[in-house]
Amino acid sequence: MPSADGEIAAIETIRRALPSPPKDEVWIGDDAAVVAVPQDGRLLLAADAVVEGVHFDLDLVDAADVGWKALAVNVSDVAAMGGQPLQALVTVVGASASMIEGLARGLAEAGAAYDCAIVGGDLSAGPCLVVSVAITGTSAPRAPVLRGNARPGDLLFVTGPLGRSAAGLRGLRSRAAGQGTVPDDLADAYRRPVARVAEGRAASSSGASAMIDVSDGLGIDLDRLASASGVGVVLEALPVAPGATADDALGGGEDYELVFAAGDLDAVMDSFAAAGLRLPIMIGACVNNPATRRLGDEPLAATGWLHRLG
Amino acid sequence: MPSADGEIAAIETIRRALPSPPKDEVWIGDDAAVVAVPQDGRLLLAADAVVEGVHFDLDLVDAADVGWKALAVNVSDVAAMGGQPLQALVTVVGASASMIEGLARGLAEAGAAYDCAIVGGDLSAGPCLVVSVAITGTSAPRAPVLRGNARPGDLLFVTGPLGRSAAGLRGLRSRAAGQGTVPDDLADAYRRPVARVAEGRAASSSGASAMIDVSDGLGIDLDRLASASGVGVVLEALPVAPGATADDALGGGEDYELVFAAGDLDAVMDSFAAAGLRLPIMIGACVNNPATRRLGDEPLAATGWLHRLG
Repeated sequence: MPSADGEIAAIETIRRALPSPPKDEVWIGDDAAVVAVPQDGRLLLAADAVVEGVHFDLDLVDAADVGWKALAVNVSDVAAMGGQPLQALVTVVGASASMIEGLARGLAEAGAAYDCAIVGGDLSAGPCLVVSVAITGTSAPRAPVLRGNARPGDLLFVTGPLGRSAAGLRGLRSRAAGQGTVPDDLADAYRRPVARVAEGRAASSSGASAMIDVSDGLGIDLDRLASASGVGVVLEALPVAPGATADDALGGGEDYELVFAAGDLDAVMDSFAAAGLRLPIMIGACVNNPATRRLGDEPLAATGWLHRLG
Repeated sequence: MPSADGEIAAIETIRRALPSPPKDEVWIGDDAAVVAVPQDGRLLLAADAVVEGVHFDLDLVDAADVGWKALAVNVSDVAAMGGQPLQALVTVVGASASMIEGLARGLAEAGAAYDCAIVGGDLSAGPCLVVSVAITGTSAPRAPVLRGNARPGDLLFVTGPLGRSAAGLRGLRSRAAGQGTVPDDLADAYRRPVARVAEGRAASSSGASAMIDVSDGLGIDLDRLASASGVGVVLEALPVAPGATADDALGGGEDYELVFAAGDLDAVMDSFAAAGLRLPIMIGACVNNPATRRLGDEPLAATGWLHRLG
């Protein structure tokens, strides 16, 4: 359990790993941070925690991976609104002094990658390791893309093939058990998930009606989008990544690709191409009957792993 | 560990306990909440977690107390900037279904008491109970009161007597051990701390130069204010609450009264009186020598209990 000195040293470790604020803002070190607000008068707010033994296993990833992931999964929530991140608050519970340094490094790397300022947070002793992040963001100049406005007839897209994270986790476990290797790209998909910020912006500018990130699995996340929108969904095919299985793609979760509905195929493809992005994969369409959940001729189960390691 | 159904049920429990958003905002249920930003272009951001076995003990408090405290300690951070809270994000790790209901009740009570909307968050399984809150706030129409701008010659004030929380905790422990009773007001000071929002506003409007909340103990929190400001501090007396000891007042922590520096005694008293508030207690003054920390003729130790139960 950190002493006062230990806590002060840990805060200094984190502060040193991070950039300094502009002179009209206050970041780490006061009771609250002071930041500028978005010009369009609207703020996105989200929070997500990663918990040892639930969301990560320190036999398979290191502290910097945990720091990266804790921030990236929050950035993904903002991306799924068509937004870009602004600030993050990071609360670390139960980390040793040596772990703090790695966490801070991973957080700083993700903060730099996503242009997201880490402006404050909290450190506490605790019997288990939890990294809890809250994030702000902006969708300006456009309105946020909610998950509940898909319409029958809208096409469904995903920003990349799915199942890489689940396949990566399986490979890391096998390797840890001395039973094989895991391709770097799959291991990285699990250890260092990528939030699709530019893709979310492109989807929004192409008129996406609804969007969600694939955090828990395509089955459950697509069900959430359809249920919130009051539409059914029919998938033509599963976008399974090389090295992954259909189950990985459907229920593995933690891919953090974006699924979105949009009415105009050309507008979607033009928007992604204009932004220099990989084109999204069209996977199906929304239909009138709100009870419909189909993958080809089969029922599409609303399954996903809410707590994959649990 | 919650299943998907358990998580959905828990989110519904929390949502039912809370008010609904205005029609131009989105709260719980999408990837991110969408809220309006303060008119003055500045946002306050803070985060604080409460951890079982560190910040609370479920033998002494109930889940609703934990929910209240988790939000109130964050509101206190905003109050210490001269601000008022706007929105909170709440992440709950490791709570049972039965505990969720109590937590939601306490969070809703604190949200109503402080006019702070709970707009989102996260629920996760976990091996220990953590309630991690992030909060937004505004100090408009005034600038935030930082902790680092106190000047030599400023007077020091505290918004109420100290040590009640520590005395309450001691009393609750004794009672739990079958060794006596504890006055309700002291028990409440520990179980249901009060954030001094109106007092922080009054201090700000009276020209407070620096402010901090007494979360870890007067000794350490006053040292933080003095160190950040580059001034020394000389206290004339300790504001010890009835039923508390001098040690409780100096190092007990968790009182959540505000300590502030201000140059104009009359302006301070007028501002508090005009707001209908209990007048603050003048406890000393800031001095030139930045190394000075005195209580009367004795050295004032920068002690406090960072993790009281640890």
